[in-house]
Amino acid sequence: MYPKQFEKLVECLRNLPGVGLKTAERYAFQILEWDEDKINEFIDCLTHIKEGSLKHCQICGNLAEDEKCEICKDHTRDDSIICVVQSPKDVIAMEKTREYTGVYHVLNGVISTSKGILPDDINIASLLDRINEDTKEIILATNPTVEGETTALYISKLLEKYPVTVTRIAHGLPMGGHLDYADELTLIKAIEGRKKM
Amino acid sequence: MYPKQFEKLVECLRNLPGVGLKTAERYAFQILEWDEDKINEFIDCLTHIKEGSLKHCQICGNLAEDEKCEICKDHTRDDSIICVVQSPKDVIAMEKTREYTGVYHVLNGVISTSKGILPDDINIASLLDRINEDTKEIILATNPTVEGETTALYISKLLEKYPVTVTRIAHGLPMGGHLDYADELTLIKAIEGRKKM
Repeated sequence: MYPKQFEKLVECLRNLPGVGLKTAERYAFQILEWDEDKINEFIDCLTHIKEGSLKHCQICGNLAEDEKCEICKDHTRDDSIICVVQSPKDVIAMEKTREYTGVYHVLNGVISTSKGILPDDINIASLLDRINEDTKEIILATNPTVEGETTALYISKLLEKYPVTVTRIAHGLPMGGHLDYADELTLIKAIEGRKKM
Repeated sequence: MYPKQFEKLVECLRNLPGVGLKTAERYAFQILEWDEDKINEFIDCLTHIKEGSLKHCQICGNLAEDEKCEICKDHTRDDSIICVVQSPKDVIAMEKTREYTGVYHVLNGVISTSKGILPDDINIASLLDRINEDTKEIILATNPTVEGETTALYISKLLEKYPVTVTRIAHGLPMGGHLDYADELTLIKAIEGRKKM
């Protein structure tokens, strides 16, 4: 019953996570109120993404504008320690602590049998590939949820045959929570209290 | 700390109503997962809106793809009755009842002194302009909220000098609620129980 163009916009917005019909309509009405500059900026962003200006870092899987992300490019980082996280959001959360100077490995997912996400679907193979004689420690910093724990356990089993120390961040984080919602102090505690797996 | 393009996308998404940083990030990560077709469709929609393919109907203020909306174009509608609503969403809600055969007038807002929205800021003048000798009744169907009631009262005062019957939809709707969330039956009751103001 709405004009077709409006219906189409609502359909597009419904593709966003957790957005139902009412919310999509509300967003669409707001977009109608935007001035041309705002819409242009949004179109630009989407065009850039479509053209692949945002990629995954070839080394660690983090978000990157080039082949390597800013952290992998940074030669002052200690690449003997690799912190394994689920998503680029978690890299941002860890960086905010300003305590961690190692590098990251972003899995871009967790093993979840219920959702059909298997070890091969996430960025694990490239983690094993990048381990070399300089690698001393791998910190498993997946979220302390069932899926995060499963993933950490799976990776720790794989790493048994490598001569590296494998640690898990301490459960200073409340169980069932998400890493990128934690405050800086909790994250610092979690890094300090890490235990050998 | 995220790549610039990603930060920009998050900023764009934060312009949506009720969307804060965390939600915008979640949406942005989802958009990164979209395939090219989905992004293209979204860009098309935004481009169409930017180019003004969605306008307000010159008669009633409803959303329209041409100068007139589908309802104003429809000659089978009874244009002696005008139902005044706040937004195009409310037109859709009323149309779903299939009980109302008159036409609409969309205010595209309500008078709100706290938000600085004055009678001149909403679509009232054009309502007075379209009243002619055929107009028999004007149904005020703004939401039963403080602002909606104020607007209804204001319009009813303006209409005192016109030879039309002015009615208010019955408060079968729960007070403080919103018209576009009501079920069809409640809306039918509300139209049936309308009272002279």
